[in-house]
Parts: sequence; C-alpha cells; structure tokens
Amino acid sequence: MSSTTEKSLLGIGLIGSGFMGRCHANAFGAVSGLFDLPAQPVKAMLADATDEIAQAGASALGFARATSDWQEMIADDAVDIVAITAPNILHEPMALAAIAAGKTVYCEKPLSTTAASALKMTEAAEVSGVVTSVGFNFLRNPMVALAREIIASGEIGEVTGFRGRHAENYMANPDAPHSFRTDPQGGGALADIGSHIISMARHLLGPIAEVSADCQTIYPTRPVAAGATERSPVVVDDMTHALVRFDSGVAGSIEANWAATGRTMDLSFEVTGSKGAISFSQENMNELLVYSGSGAGAGYKRIEAGPSHPPYDRFCPAPGHHLGFNDLKIIEVAELIDAHMSRGKCTPDFREAWAVQQTVEAMQTSSQEHCWITVGGAT
Amino acid sequence: MSSTTEKSLLGIGLIGSGFMGRCHANAFGAVSGLFDLPAQPVKAMLADATDEIAQAGASALGFARATSDWQEMIADDAVDIVAITAPNILHEPMALAAIAAGKTVYCEKPLSTTAASALKMTEAAEVSGVVTSVGFNFLRNPMVALAREIIASGEIGEVTGFRGRHAENYMANPDAPHSFRTDPQGGGALADIGSHIISMARHLLGPIAEVSADCQTIYPTRPVAAGATERSPVVVDDMTHALVRFDSGVAGSIEANWAATGRTMDLSFEVTGSKGAISFSQENMNELLVYSGSGAGAGYKRIEAGPSHPPYDRFCPAPGHHLGFNDLKIIEVAELIDAHMSRGKCTPDFREAWAVQQTVEAMQTSSQEHCWITVGGAT
Amino acid sequence: MSSTTEKSLLGIGLIGSGFMGRCHANAFGAVSGLFDLPAQPVKAMLADATDEIAQAGASALGFARATSDWQEMIADDAVDIVAITAPNILHEPMALAAIAAGKTVYCEKPLSTTAASALKMTEAAEVSGVVTSVGFNFLRNPMVALAREIIASGEIGEVTGFRGRHAENYMANPDAPHSFRTDPQGGGALADIGSHIISMARHLLGPIAEVSADCQTIYPTRPVAAGATERSPVVVDDMTHALVRFDSGVAGSIEANWAATGRTMDLSFEVTGSKGAISFSQENMNELLVYSGSGAGAGYKRIEAGPSHPPYDRFCPAPGHHLGFNDLKIIEVAELIDAHMSRGKCTPDFREAWAVQQTVEAMQTSSQEHCWITVGGAT
Amino acid sequence: MSSTTEKSLLGIGLIGSGFMGRCHANAFGAVSGLFDLPAQPVKAMLADATDEIAQAGASALGFARATSDWQEMIADDAVDIVAITAPNILHEPMALAAIAAGKTVYCEKPLSTTAASALKMTEAAEVSGVVTSVGFNFLRNPMVALAREIIASGEIGEVTGFRGRHAENYMANPDAPHSFRTDPQGGGALADIGSHIISMARHLLGPIAEVSADCQTIYPTRPVAAGATERSPVVVDDMTHALVRFDSGVAGSIEANWAATGRTMDLSFEVTGSKGAISFSQENMNELLVYSGSGAGAGYKRIEAGPSHPPYDRFCPAPGHHLGFNDLKIIEVAELIDAHMSRGKCTPDFREAWAVQQTVEAMQTSSQEHCWITVGGAT
Repeated sequence: MSSTTEKSLLGIGLIGSGFMGRCHANAFGAVSGLFDLPAQPVKAMLADATDEIAQAGASALGFARATSDWQEMIADDAVDIVAITAPNILHEPMALAAIAAGKTVYCEKPLSTTAASALKMTEAAEVSGVVTSVGFNFLRNPMVALAREIIASGEIGEVTGFRGRHAENYMANPDAPHSFRTDPQGGGALADIGSHIISMARHLLGPIAEVSADCQTIYPTRPVAAGATERSPVVVDDMTHALVRFDSGVAGSIEANWAATGRTMDLSFEVTGSKGAISFSQENMNELLVYSGSGAGAGYKRIEAGPSHPPYDRFCPAPGHHLGFNDLKIIEVAELIDAHMSRGKCTPDFREAWAVQQTVEAMQTSSQEHCWITVGGAT
Repeated sequence: MSSTTEKSLLGIGLIGSGFMGRCHANAFGAVSGLFDLPAQPVKAMLADATDEIAQAGASALGFARATSDWQEMIADDAVDIVAITAPNILHEPMALAAIAAGKTVYCEKPLSTTAASALKMTEAAEVSGVVTSVGFNFLRNPMVALAREIIASGEIGEVTGFRGRHAENYMANPDAPHSFRTDPQGGGALADIGSHIISMARHLLGPIAEVSADCQTIYPTRPVAAGATERSPVVVDDMTHALVRFDSGVAGSIEANWAATGRTMDLSFEVTGSKGAISFSQENMNELLVYSGSGAGAGYKRIEAGPSHPPYDRFCPAPGHHLGFNDLKIIEVAELIDAHMSRGKCTPDFREAWAVQQTVEAMQTSSQEHCWITVGGAT
Repeated sequence: MSSTTEKSLLGIGLIGSGFMGRCHANAFGAVSGLFDLPAQPVKAMLADATDEIAQAGASALGFARATSDWQEMIADDAVDIVAITAPNILHEPMALAAIAAGKTVYCEKPLSTTAASALKMTEAAEVSGVVTSVGFNFLRNPMVALAREIIASGEIGEVTGFRGRHAENYMANPDAPHSFRTDPQGGGALADIGSHIISMARHLLGPIAEVSADCQTIYPTRPVAAGATERSPVVVDDMTHALVRFDSGVAGSIEANWAATGRTMDLSFEVTGSKGAISFSQENMNELLVYSGSGAGAGYKRIEAGPSHPPYDRFCPAPGHHLGFNDLKIIEVAELIDAHMSRGKCTPDFREAWAVQQTVEAMQTSSQEHCWITVGGAT
Repeated sequence: MSSTTEKSLLGIGLIGSGFMGRCHANAFGAVSGLFDLPAQPVKAMLADATDEIAQAGASALGFARATSDWQEMIADDAVDIVAITAPNILHEPMALAAIAAGKTVYCEKPLSTTAASALKMTEAAEVSGVVTSVGFNFLRNPMVALAREIIASGEIGEVTGFRGRHAENYMANPDAPHSFRTDPQGGGALADIGSHIISMARHLLGPIAEVSADCQTIYPTRPVAAGATERSPVVVDDMTHALVRFDSGVAGSIEANWAATGRTMDLSFEVTGSKGAISFSQENMNELLVYSGSGAGAGYKRIEAGPSHPPYDRFCPAPGHHLGFNDLKIIEVAELIDAHMSRGKCTPDFREAWAVQQTVEAMQTSSQEHCWITVGGAT
C-alpha cells in the first residue's frame, strides 16, 4: 500500500456559500475525479459575511479554512483562484482586488451592476493579464457545443433567423417579494435571465448590433419582504420582448420573462438556416433537435447527449445517462483550471460578459425611448 | 322503401377549383352528414377561369353546373351563398357584386389586397346587411375554442403575456420562385401567414393597439418562375418579427416566417397568465397544453381533443380520433350555414378580417419607418 | 355554361347509419373531389333497422333511397358495392348475400364473430371472385405506408424486435355498462381493438406464428345498461398482454387494453432493427419517428406527413395540414373503388381479416390454457 | 479566521475505479455539500486489481490510500463502509468478508451472479445485522418517489395494469464483442438491465408472483473481443419480453432489451389505475407524467422536478435545474450514510436485490421451459 501521488495543487478561494457557492464548491470537489486536469484544485478558503456563516459553509463544503474578510482571503498565498458568488454590487471591488493580486477570477453573472462597471473590470483584467471566467453556465452544455459545430459546419446553410427566450416562473406570483433581483441596480428579468439568452445568442451567432425592446413591469407593486403586507413599487421589468439584428445582418427576437407561469427553465433557441435548423430548450437539456434533409425523409432529429459529444464522455461512457445542472458547473470549472494553467482564455471571459451587459442596457434604453437603439452606440 | 325527405336547400356558388376550392367543395359536401343544420347545402355552380377548367372542377367536385363567368353565377337564382377562392386581387369586385346581389359571402383570406379595400368591402356588406365569413380556418379548431373558454373563465388568472408565431418552410428554399405570394399587392410572409397568427391573437386577447416590427427579405432575388434561371428582386418580407401591445395593455411578440426551415405549420401561441398558461401549436392541432396548479402537482396538462370539446363530437363520439385540416373547413361551413339561416354573425366576418389587415399594414409601416406605430392611427 | 360530364357511376349501398355508417357515407361523398378515380361513387341506398331510421340516415347522409330491408338493397341493381357497418353478428349473412349477388363487399372490422365464420366468408368470396375490403382503417395512414417502405428498403437493417399496443380508455370506468363490446361472441378488448394492432403487426412484419397471452378481466361486473344499478358478470377481457413470435422468427409483445386510463388512441408500435428503428403512435398520427445514423449525429427523426407521402398529396399540396381520422376512411374507399374497377385486391381483404381473427383466438386460447399456442395450430 | 469544525467522520473503502467506481467516489465527495448528514464521509482507501491502477484511481478520485488487496482494505480500521464496484463474480466473497468484519456494505447491482448466491449474502448480512444497500440507482429519482406517493395516495384509484421496459442500444450492433455482460453467469440483457425495471416494478407495485417470458438471442455469435475477427456463440439473451402477474393480482408486461436501436435509456413504465395513470421514462428523468381528471379537462400533466419533490431541493432551490445521472448516486449515498448512522434500512437492501434476482431467474426458466413459472416456486 502507498499513499496517493498528488498533482500540483491549485488553491481555491470561494466567496459566498449560498446556492451558487455550493455549486462552485461541488464543482471544484468533483472535477478531478472526472477530468484529466493539469492541476488539482484544493478547497483552500471560504469567505462569507460572518465568521459563523463562513465556518458553517466551509465545514459543509469541505474548505480547509474560513473567514469573514474576503480581502484577507484574496491576499492569502494559498489562494490561486478567486471564485465570486457574492451579491452583484460587490463583484467589482472583489474582482478588482483579485486582479490587483494577480489571481485568476471566476465571477458569477452578471459581471457587475452596470456595463460601465463591467468594462472597468474587463480593462483591469486585460491590463494585468489575469485569466477571467464568468458563470454563464448554460453555454457549457455539450449540446450547445454541438449546436455551434453544426452552425459552423454549414450543415444548416446560411443562417437566416433567430428566436431566443429565457422564461421562468419564479416571479410569476404577484406576491413574490422584492429582493436584490428587483433592485434597479442590475435587477429585472432582462438583466437577471435575459442575460443568459443574450450570451447564448452571441455564443451562437455573434454580436447583436441593434435592438428594439419593450420592457414591461407586469406587477406594479410587490411586498417589501417575504410575507410582508406592505408593498412598494417595482421599477424593473418582469418581461421583455425584443427585436434584434445581429452584426451579420440576421434578424430575430429575444424574450426574457421571469413571470412566465408554466415555464421553469425555458432557456430556448431556434436557429433557422437556408438548409436546416436547430432547436433547443434547457427544459430538455440533454437533447438537441436538428432539422435536415428534404422531401419524404426530412424531419427534426432528436439527438441525445452521449459520449460522442465531449465532454459528456467525462461523466459517463454511455449515452442516456443525463447530465444535470450541477454538471455544467463542473465543465465550467474544468475549463477554468485548464485556462489558469495555460494562461489561456475562458469562454465567456470578462470582456464577453461586458458585451452581454451592454446589450442588456441597449434594450433597456430602447424600451425607455420607444425606438431602435444601436448596441454600444451611446458610448 | 321511400325516397328521402330533403330539408330546405341552400345553393352554393363556388369561385375557384384550386386547393382552397377543393377544400370548400369537400366541406359543403360533408357538412350535412356531420352537423344537424337548418338547411342542406347543394353544390349548385362552380365558376373558374375558363369553361374547361370550370367543367372539370364541377365534375370532380360534384357541382351541378359550371361557368367561366363569375358574374353570371353570382346573379343566378340557384346561388344563395357565394364562396370566393379566386386570386386576392379579385376578392373585392367579386364580393361587392355578391353583396349587391344580396348573397351571403364566404371569402378566403386575406379579405383583399389592402386594408382600404377590405374596409370598402366591409362597409358595403354592413350597409346591405348580408352575412359574411372569412376563411381564417385555424380559429375553428375546438382546441382554440377551449383556449378561449379557459381564458374567459379566469382559470389562468389575469393575462400577462402573449407569444405567437406562424412559421412554415414553403419559401425557405432560395430558389422557390416568385408567385402571387411575392406580389407587393398583399404578398409577403406577414400578409400571407402572419395574418393567421394576428387573427388568432385578436381572437384570444382582443385588438392590438401598437406595434414595432422588423420585416426582412432574406433572399433578395428569386427565379421569375418555377425552374427559370432569370431572377428578379423580392420586395416583400420572408420573415417578420414584431413587438405588440394589445388594447388591454398586455405585451407580447408575433413572428411570421415562410422561410422557417424545419417548420411545416408552427401556428403556435403561448398565453401566460398570473395563475396559469396555455400553449398550442397547429403541429399538434388535436391537443391543448394547459398549465395550472402550484407546488408538487403543478404542470402542463396535455388535453387531447374529444367529444367534450364541441364540435369535435360531430365528427366522432370518442376522443383520440383526430380532426384534420379539412375538418376545420367543415366547421367553418357549418357556422356559415347557421349564420345564413339566422341572419347571424360569423367569426370572423369582413370587419374582423379588415382589422387583421390593418394590423398587418401597421407592422409593415413600422418596419419601413423603423419605429413603433399605432394600429389604425393613420386613419 | 354546361352541365358537368360524369364518369361511369358506381352505386353504393350502405348498411347502418351509426358512427361507422356516417364515416363511410362521408368517405364516399368526399373521395371524388380528392382522388382521380376511374368511376364516381353514387350514394344509392341506405339500409337500417327501421324505415324511419333508414330515411333519417339517408336524408342526413345524402343517399337517394332508404330501406329497412337489407336483402332488398343487396339485390337492387343500383347497388354495386355493399358497405356493411351493422352489428358484428350480422356481418356473415349480409356478406354472404352480397357475395352471392356478385357485389363487391366492404365490411367493417371485425369481419365476423369467430374465425370460423370469417373463414367461411373468405372462402365464399374467393370462390365467387368478388372484391372484398375490411375496415382496418389505421393501415391506410400514409405514415404507415412510409413505415412499410422503410422496413422493406433495409434502412433499419434486419428487423430484430416488435413492440405493439392498442390502448384506449373507453372502458376504464368500472361503471361503463355492458354492450355488444362485452358480448362473449366477438367481444373484449383483444377482439375489439387488439385486432387493430394485430393487423398492423402483420401489415408490417408478416404472420404471427406463436403466442403466449394473458387476457384479464379487470372489472368482474358491469352495469347491465347505461345508468343501471343492476350489474352482471363480465366474461371478456379488459386488457390482454401477449408475447408473440412472427413466422420470420422475430419476437415481440402486443397489448390490447380498453381500460387504459389516460390513453385515447395509443395504437402504437416500435419496430427495432439492426441499423435503425421506427416508432409510431396514432396519438400523433401525422408523424413517424425514424431512427438512423450512429455516433454524434444519431437520433430519432420526426417525419411529418406531407405531399411526399402519398396519398397525403391528394388532401393537400403542402405539409403540416394534418390528416384526420375521417380521411383514413376516404383513403380506404379510394382503394376500394380502384380495386372494384380493376378486379384487384384490397389490403386488407377478407382473408387477411380472417388471419387477424385467428390470431386473436389463438391468444384467447393461450390465456385459457396458460401456455404458448401455435396460431392456426388447432385447424 | 478559524479552521473548520468536522462532524464525526465515516471512512469509505471503495473497491474498483471504473465507471461505477468513479460514480461512487464522486457521490461520496459531493454528498456533504448537498445534504445535512449526521456524519461526514472521508475517502479513506481505494482497492483495485493492481497497485498501479489503485494508486492512479486513488489520486484521481481523492482517496487517501490505495491498495491491490481488497481483503486488507476491508479489515482496515479506517474503513466503515465498503463500496463494491468489482466484477459481479467477486461480489459474494467481498460482501461476505465485509459482513464478517461488521462493515456496512454498499454493493453494485446485480447483487451476485445467481439468486442462490444473493440469498446467501442476504442471510449473512441479516444474521450479522449490518446495513446493506444495492445500487439500483434509478429508484432514487425524486420523480419515482413522487410516483410511489401518487399510487399510495389513491389518486389514480385501484391499480389495474403495468407496462415496463428497460431498453438500451449498447449491444444493438451485431459486432459488439463478448464481455462480462455476455457471460452466462449473471449476464444477458435481462440480468443486466431487466433487473432495473424489475426492481422498479417491485418498488412501485410490490412482488411479482408469476411470469411467462421469452428470452431471445438476436445475434447468435459475437466477436470474442473488441475488433476480433473470431466469433463465438452467444448464450445469453439480447432481448426478453415477459408477461407478469403481481402478488396483488395486477397483470402487466416487462421488456429488457440491450439491442434496442434508437433507445439509449428507455427505462420506462406506465402504471394504469381506475382513476388515473402515471407514465415515466428515464429518457426524460426530470419529469413525471400524471393523468387525472375526466371530461373536457382530462389529460396527462407533465410534472417537472423541483424543490417540492425531495430531495431535489438539496441540489437546487428552484425547479428546472435538472438532476443528472450522477446526482442519483449522491442521493443513494446520502441514504446509505443515514442508514449507517441510525442502523436503519436502505431501499433496496440485499434482501430486495435477491428478490429481483429470483424474478430474473424465474423469467429465464420460463423461457427455457416455454411455460408460466411461479417466482420462487422452485425454492
């Protein structure tokens, strides 16, 4: 018997132990057993709002140390990668501190509360040359990678149209209370989940040039807190419908909707081409529908995720064994570790996340001004 | 043995023996065997472009007489109901002649080539008091009637959003040639099939007040005729995406697309409410998806068409025996005969069809002017 | 103007004006407008139990004459084709009379109440050389024709397995009363609807050689009539599960179930091959799922019915306009008229319907004797 | 800052580092971050065939120590729970050794190569009182728990029928080579994956009393190894169709098929009741279809997995974020740790796994003897 040989170790410092913090911790814990990585992540430190919360989180999530001082954590030599799952308003100072310390930064979406702030973070990272990654995890799905390949291959011909949506129902109840999600700083359905379908649209078809959007507040007031009888006005959108024109000239539509009763995760798109089409919904995240052929044999083919669609093969050698949401985070973390070791680029990085945010803001402006807006035009 | 006793007879005069003419003839032939009507239609006369075509059509479709002179037919005493399936440009003179002769008019969609023309027809019909019906057959589906009932009942709560589409692929091929469909007078995807989803939207949620639309020509030229090498410019839209605001304040989106590779009949809608939702696609025309409930038992229920959804029961006493497209025309004709006998109203009639056309034109104007347009605002 | 020229006329004599009678009448009325046939059917006479019922039916369904004497009708010179939709017990005498009169016979399924009776009818028809057809209408679906073509083409390789079912819910309620369907003479789920999936299985893969079946009565008593409080024993099956071996050696399973809560028309099959597979359910009767390919691009393709799948093109020149149940009867009647004129063969004819019934009886025997039974082995 | 406080630790000894070994390791690593458990698992030792394999596995999977001597590992004081993912033939000696050492045993399915061996293991475990668990992971799905609750609640009324299947395509290629799966000792589609649907059937509806089965070898020979040209006979089944009668009297069918081209994970069932029905397929593992209601509003409702369906809430606070296959193993391990600490019972334990195996063998006997067989009848 022998003790096991370790690869070079990579210290992870995680900020936040809520839902997303747990996702990150789980991903860092599982990734070595699934991927053949150049380094092994070690859960070095966890920072949270108080010592108690931080210690409880560290214990549950397997971190060696805990702290209520995120600045101390960022400065710690044991920390190589800083993972940020704190409230959006804190992303900028945390990321700037990590960048200043030369650490790789892995930040949850949205990158910040405004595009201007996101650009500041992007430029700081690029000047210092640190690796950055932003948690638009839905892009990590092997089925999305397959969609990109099919588009690039020309199998569906020239792209002629796009129809995208991110619809959920978590704010469909008029009595769902205010929270950070309804804060005018970075809140609203468009910023919260519209950013996912915008990042997907860009991932598949490139930049969006121009938008005409209609941001609507369905429920004008909400309880000030869970269970409260007092209500206060809602100033963010519950639902946005937008027309988009991509740089390529392709036209389409995008919807963001957190009051979409009946939809739990309809992050969906249909890409139409001159010879074929692709259709996907996160509600069936382990399949991609691909249309090809003509005449008697034409039809939409349901392709199920399997080992032919990397990195599915890292999770299972056989098809039909579904990946789940948490697995997308593991894929994200695997790419992060590879990029950290090779000083490479993550997709998406800070710059890409900034462009997403800029598109969100163009839509908001379009709705306010009731006209078409060029993305980035006002800059 | 005895000869059979006939009900009062109703003479049908059909103009046109193409695809839609055959649909009408089939419907008039079948309706008595399925519905218990106050009168029995008789296929009296068929008019078409030449005597030869008219005679061949009459023979195949079971009409007693044939003519190449539609004016003669409209004037004939044997004709009580004039069914128009001629080219769009002829709808106005034919309908005006029938109205002048006091005949009930059953006209295929679009009602005419412009909203102005449609309004003229509407006003003429209303002045003379004749019954009118327009062939937006998809509204006749028992599942659409069920959708309306569910919305009206409050089962899905307050309506909060709409998402509609009519997407087909019959012009997806860049080499599909010019035809009456690409004629700037009444042509384009929006006028041709967008009118179906607009009529559906109005049928479900009422008038549309304001639009922002993007009409796009995907293929700038097409062959001048089938098989021709010569190509000429296309000036109508292949695809339109539009933002809409209903009179009720509800917001949503509408897409019309005849270049939607992979879609054969995606006339679909999703109506979102504060307590539930409804989803439908003509691709599965015998089912309606209805979302209700909350917590562990919430979900989209797939309701299959059956005898509980009139007038399905007229076609079959058991569920699961699908209605087809041609059956929708039979339902349309049954309503027409009832309205003719009672001097009642069809849904949709000329006025409704005019309002649809007005909405189409508002979208076209919005796209040209690149801004929001109030429907009917220019009147 | 001229009167229309008629083709040679074909007199139809219909027995019965219930659900199936109406289907037949509708089909004979519509077929000329859709198909290019060598002769034109004329609704000559309708026979039913009483003069009143017959006259009412003839009037509603467009038959020229009515009678309560089916023998008189069969003998009438105006009748060329006898269509039988009477109770099963009358099929044999009616068909034998029509055969004796040299008339083409179109009989609803099941052909008779026993395989022995069906064989007698078959042999009489073959001796006299009349054309026969039996109403297993589900075989007429263009998607089923496509399935047969795909199997024959070798596209799915060697057939390796079969899984078939006909499940409905019309007897799922324990208080659904007795009727002719629960009569031990020809009744039960297996005889009533199991015959459909057996005919489908034979249509696709050929004769069934051997069976092991379990016929189960789920509800031991039912009301003696609708609304009655008195109940009497049920002696027929509500649900049958069977193992089958085809003559070809292929193994599989078949289920017949009329107490299948939740299923309205799950006449479904999956044919598995060494290179591909086919899946179909009548619940989505306008589509066929075909699996082919391997590796990253493999998947089930949803092929929608369209004009490339004859005779869909007879109903509509574009895909996506669904066929309905009544359209299957029109296709059946078109084949019947063609066969009548050419003295050809219908699929299925009496002999095929007898073989289906023989298979049903083998399953019943297998269940009673609790062992495998060779189909036709006792003959 | 403080170091984190640990709960009482639980030493895991894992045998095997293949696909299933990695699943186990991943589950033990992730479970503490997701579940609130009474103890924290520690990856203490990994045993595999050679020191090299064991060390590589331990390194990749995060085990503290590695060994090629599984007996040494079982005896080690650091090991509290022995997880067995070794070849089936070794399950018995390994489990018996672990039982003798008083360790909790977590064994992959099938429990052993014969029912007799499985019974021996079961009795040993029960005599010594150790906790046992067997890896029929599909039972851990929250949607399966929901199905059980719905059945138990009476929502679907009296259960009247069952239709189950486990179909995959991994041996559909005639050139897929021999492996341990085709070994007559415990091999074949029925034993390999049929055991999953049998365990599911028992989980939902209780013991199976009687079976009539048809085990068929589709491809009589296979290559002796991957890529080999030499072929040798196959003596196990590729596909089994079976009729089943449960102890409760309910009848149904079960299919096991590893040559099911087009199916990657069709572990599916339909439970029919007098008032409703349930339908599920592992191909859509995050949803359960539940039929209820009657008349115009009846239909199959698609219930998506969400936090209302424990322990989904452990993975995510919102619905729509799919669980994947690996998550089922995490749930399995959470139950195991709970049972270990409370000396409770896992579902399924060794006794249940033995009953599954007994049912498999009854089906094999039924096929050989071509007759119905009482399960456990020969004992």
